Amino acid sequence: MLNTPEDFNRALLALPAADEEARSAARARQATLTKPPGSLGRLEELAIWFAGWHGDARPRLDNALALIFAGNHGVTAQGISPYPPEVTAQMVANFEAGGAAINQLCTIAGAELRVTALDLEKPTGDIATGRALSDEDCLDALNTGMASVEEDAGVVLLGEMGIGNTTIASALAMACFGGEAELWCGAGTGLDADGISHKARIVTQAVAHNAAATNNAFSMLAHLGGREQAALAGAALAARQRRIPVILDGFISCAAVGVLGWAQKGALDHCVAGHRSRESGHSRLLEALALEPIVDLDMRLGEGSGAAVALTILRAALATHNGMASFAEAGVSDRD
Amino acid sequence: MLNTPEDFNRALLALPAADEEARSAARARQATLTKPPGSLGRLEELAIWFAGWHGDARPRLDNALALIFAGNHGVTAQGISPYPPEVTAQMVANFEAGGAAINQLCTIAGAELRVTALDLEKPTGDIATGRALSDEDCLDALNTGMASVEEDAGVVLLGEMGIGNTTIASALAMACFGGEAELWCGAGTGLDADGISHKARIVTQAVAHNAAATNNAFSMLAHLGGREQAALAGAALAARQRRIPVILDGFISCAAVGVLGWAQKGALDHCVAGHRSRESGHSRLLEALALEPIVDLDMRLGEGSGAAVALTILRAALATHNGMASFAEAGVSDRD
Repeated sequence: MLNTPEDFNRALLALPAADEEARSAARARQATLTKPPGSLGRLEELAIWFAGWHGDARPRLDNALALIFAGNHGVTAQGISPYPPEVTAQMVANFEAGGAAINQLCTIAGAELRVTALDLEKPTGDIATGRALSDEDCLDALNTGMASVEEDAGVVLLGEMGIGNTTIASALAMACFGGEAELWCGAGTGLDADGISHKARIVTQAVAHNAAATNNAFSMLAHLGGREQAALAGAALAARQRRIPVILDGFISCAAVGVLGWAQKGALDHCVAGHRSRESGHSRLLEALALEPIVDLDMRLGEGSGAAVALTILRAALATHNGMASFAEAGVSDRD
Repeated sequence: MLNTPEDFNRALLALPAADEEARSAARARQATLTKPPGSLGRLEELAIWFAGWHGDARPRLDNALALIFAGNHGVTAQGISPYPPEVTAQMVANFEAGGAAINQLCTIAGAELRVTALDLEKPTGDIATGRALSDEDCLDALNTGMASVEEDAGVVLLGEMGIGNTTIASALAMACFGGEAELWCGAGTGLDADGISHKARIVTQAVAHNAAATNNAFSMLAHLGGREQAALAGAALAARQRRIPVILDGFISCAAVGVLGWAQKGALDHCVAGHRSRESGHSRLLEALALEPIVDLDMRLGEGSGAAVALTILRAALATHNGMASFAEAGVSDRD
């Protein structure tokens, strides 16, 4: 529970590390399995990474938890989305009724879905002309995100819903990592070229307007973020404090949680990027955060959809890591 | 059942097409689902492709069948693999005992695994100095592959095992698509640079030696292929004749089945490439066959492992396609 903005910034200075012993033991196990060394590629790396955070050389994956946070944004007044803001609440209802993409993907991937709607009737302030959240509202959202990470979660998937929130993500990414707004702004849910240019102007204005206040992680989220962004950052922090591995979704999730990585080197070591979104800006953001996406399927939906697809790959990684026979067990000749 | 080499070549001229009506209906359905148009990217394309071959706008995926064919190769006498040829039979035993990567991946992906060892005690002829298979032996392997495709299979995954068979794949790819052997030869199970250079010399020699005889699909497989290559090609053909979609594995599977695509335009329309292998040559081959891999995880194991991982993505594609609510059903506002 965070009581002040400083609590959040200080927490980033005291993050636990992975268990190097479990990590090394997992790496050693991989070398004994019946395959040419390294031939499972990313699957091997994922299993070793997961082992380090679980503190177990042969880690089980129980209780995969998909957390989706939804928020509304005052910046929609600037006409930066082709969908009306009511869609946020309508899509939350769709999540609850089981009709959205993320419902089907969680079923396939074996994840429990928890959807948290964050004061949808109270959009944040318009970042083009002011700050998004008061300190108190930002703390509330951070604490909601932190409290959402159930203690027995084996992995946490982080996704979001919020009409207008690619604009928020672009603003956060630009404020953290620099560059022109055009580099961070894409079509979102379906803007045309004129719409993207307009969005870039709004993002430029928002970043300039809030520049003086965005010099630490908390104020970055409070000024240019939103409720779901703060909740995502809080969830990533709480997961790290419990050494729970995290699968990030696309541009918006990475921009929100990326604020931690911007503020503190190594803060995202417990995170993997589930996918590379087609949303322009995501590739640049992945590079800035030194994250290598697991899949690249031209998706750009959000909702945690890319993270859920990536969970199936993590399961494949752990199944091979834990289930394969060694050369000795199988009586297979190793290389000459 | 093929009785003559001509039967095989003629079969390639009479391949059924996908059901365009089901394909169009699936495409139309995608446009109604609660997401921005196109935002599920490759998942949408996979669902539409699958619907076309199943002849059903909302196709179920039952009975996923992973076919792994194993063979031995006389070309191992040329020292082109760091593993001894006995490993082929040992790995088949490992598949049968459930200890290999593909066993774990089939469990995760929900596929039935069928392993067919093809006369492992009779390696093919050394392609560097002769032809791989007699017409009769090649027909036998093609027919075995064709008979392996069970009628009720909803999708077929094609993989292989065979010490030395990246050399075979390189020879087939070079003979079909041209270019220097160096472009098609990689580390396989773990050759060093000298080993790869040696392999490229052997491949050059093999392609030159058999050049006069490799002007049609059957003779290509008989002269430069092997038993598992012919079985893979036969299985791909039988699947096409029954309009069963196919997920190809990596370099070796693509090179074997690629002979069909080389011989007959459109022959691989029912196939997707499960993954991009790290084996050098695979990317070039995918390009030659106009196949876009589903995942790229730096894998290079074979055994159908990349195809099995891709099956999890196909399941995600079908789950969203079949399970999502439409805008109208969910009461979500469509774009302005």
